[in-house]
Amino acid sequence: MASKQTYRVTLGPRSYDIHIEPGCLTKLGTVMGDLFPSPARCLVISNTTIAPLYLQTISESLVQAGWQVSDCILKDGECYKTMDSLTLILDALMQARLSRQEPVIALGGGVVGDMAGFAAACYRRGIPFIQVPTTVLAQVDSSVGGKTAINHPHGKNMIGAFHQPKLVWIDPQVLSTLDLREIRAGLGEAIKYGLIRDADFFNWMNQHMDKAVALDANILAEMIHSCCRHKAEVVIADETEQGNRALLNLGHTFGHAIESITHYTRYLHGEAVALGTLMAARLSQQLGFAPAGTEAQIQSCYESAGLPVAIPEFDAQIWLDAMGHDKKNIGNHIRYILLRDIGDAFLADRVSPDDIHTLIDSYR
Amino acid sequence: MASKQTYRVTLGPRSYDIHIEPGCLTKLGTVMGDLFPSPARCLVISNTTIAPLYLQTISESLVQAGWQVSDCILKDGECYKTMDSLTLILDALMQARLSRQEPVIALGGGVVGDMAGFAAACYRRGIPFIQVPTTVLAQVDSSVGGKTAINHPHGKNMIGAFHQPKLVWIDPQVLSTLDLREIRAGLGEAIKYGLIRDADFFNWMNQHMDKAVALDANILAEMIHSCCRHKAEVVIADETEQGNRALLNLGHTFGHAIESITHYTRYLHGEAVALGTLMAARLSQQLGFAPAGTEAQIQSCYESAGLPVAIPEFDAQIWLDAMGHDKKNIGNHIRYILLRDIGDAFLADRVSPDDIHTLIDSYR
Repeated sequence: MASKQTYRVTLGPRSYDIHIEPGCLTKLGTVMGDLFPSPARCLVISNTTIAPLYLQTISESLVQAGWQVSDCILKDGECYKTMDSLTLILDALMQARLSRQEPVIALGGGVVGDMAGFAAACYRRGIPFIQVPTTVLAQVDSSVGGKTAINHPHGKNMIGAFHQPKLVWIDPQVLSTLDLREIRAGLGEAIKYGLIRDADFFNWMNQHMDKAVALDANILAEMIHSCCRHKAEVVIADETEQGNRALLNLGHTFGHAIESITHYTRYLHGEAVALGTLMAARLSQQLGFAPAGTEAQIQSCYESAGLPVAIPEFDAQIWLDAMGHDKKNIGNHIRYILLRDIGDAFLADRVSPDDIHTLIDSYR
Repeated sequence: MASKQTYRVTLGPRSYDIHIEPGCLTKLGTVMGDLFPSPARCLVISNTTIAPLYLQTISESLVQAGWQVSDCILKDGECYKTMDSLTLILDALMQARLSRQEPVIALGGGVVGDMAGFAAACYRRGIPFIQVPTTVLAQVDSSVGGKTAINHPHGKNMIGAFHQPKLVWIDPQVLSTLDLREIRAGLGEAIKYGLIRDADFFNWMNQHMDKAVALDANILAEMIHSCCRHKAEVVIADETEQGNRALLNLGHTFGHAIESITHYTRYLHGEAVALGTLMAARLSQQLGFAPAGTEAQIQSCYESAGLPVAIPEFDAQIWLDAMGHDKKNIGNHIRYILLRDIGDAFLADRVSPDDIHTLIDSYR
């Protein structure tokens, strides 16, 4: 398979490229010339973990291409995906006096990308932004598609915007410095595409999991390619999640509840989604949609990825309250993404609170 | 002229009606049935001045039509158009558990409309909102066109979104309870359409100013009709201000600076824009674009409306710093909207800091 590749996300005037190439971090300054008529000011947003590793590389590339680079370094962690952090970014944008034509560059994982993207969506009612994702989760999922947000104390990603990046610039080499726990959480998001729409890819992930966990460069690159292709197809078909894009939220209704109840500190997002996916799989079996053994197959896959599989115990009412705030609700109904089989997810509107009580009780 | 009228703002899937009718406040619940498949929850956002006057009327109309109404009442004033107020609205939205399909209703002037609209743009990445403007300024200008925002401590409307309402519902009768100062500030925004694109309307405003200030119902209604027609035409031609929509910001580069320097407390927005327009007119004459007497004609019109015409004195550098944050900048240049004549505004990119120094000195 080719070591470098570009996918086009075709969305009319909001179209952009996803570029995947080992070592491409040093070339960002060069490619910016294709997107902007002349270099001017830009603001790189990163966090205290990633900035010491890659901020200098990216800044040098930009400065050499003539850009005037400012930066805004946030604390690392989902618990900082808050209005306070957004305010810090907006203050930095005001300080750097970026015009409507000058870009924000998000250098980091999903949290940095979501916050930087939302700040870019709001500042002067929208300026360009570029995603340079540095985690598996961000490279296979969150950097593509224009969903940006911060969390509200009572619900994940409740405040945000659809704001497409102008470019997604993926260097798989940066994954080599990742914490193993971050890698495993990201693999969960990759497995998700297999569960939703591609049973062959699920099997491929199962077969190559050991190498993926061991950061085999070829396996990771192939995995990222497959995921970006899936994500681009889904986003092109349903940019603002009026329909099937919601399937990408498999495991998120329960997963967001787990994150919210535990105040975004106990689990990484990918871990919470893996747990939520196991719950969705069990619910799918309970309601007679998925064949017996579906949950077990997924659990085995997650275990080989080293993901947590023990569902935390809370009262059913705490679950229901936490899920009542999930964005995917229609009216008073909670919408679930369930499985008919591995590779075949669907939206279920008619799951009752009793069904959820039964599910929760099954973990006691 | 007809006492009621509907203008359609045609923007594809974001199209909506502007409806103007004396007494229509009591009918909002009825018309909501045309926009939403079934009544559910809604959140009315208003302020401490307007809510005691009209919140009950509008709530009763909604409840009678089957809606479950919550409200969020903010303090009154441009100085409260802040991140803190936005957070209050978002908390109220979370508390009311509005889904993605349920609307926010903005009952108030420009500040309420801008903040409620921005909250609706951000909450769950965008929910519907309805404008029920209650000031002259909001009825002739800010409620139409989808510009939403809050202020940053260092710049006006720096944080916001383009988010079109689903309906603008204008009842001119509510103006009867307005403070005279608010009326005069709103007349300034009406005069603006004349200055930018319709010299006949400028003359009409001059001729009917006494009646407008005295709240003559027919004159006010005719004025609102003309302004909404102008605003709709401009927004349809350039929704996200890539070009000529910026002309509507006549007087705003200087006006926003005046508001920012005086911390949004000394002048109403419409007053600051009137002062800014006089400065833009003098600059247009100074640079040889507009004929002598243009500024004097505008000043005379503002005086008959009872608007302030004395430009406050600050150092030229304070002006330039405050204007450096204005959204209309391209790169390092400050963009000005100038006049070739009354009824003929244009965008000027090549005004130098020296030109501004000369202008500022002329007021000493």
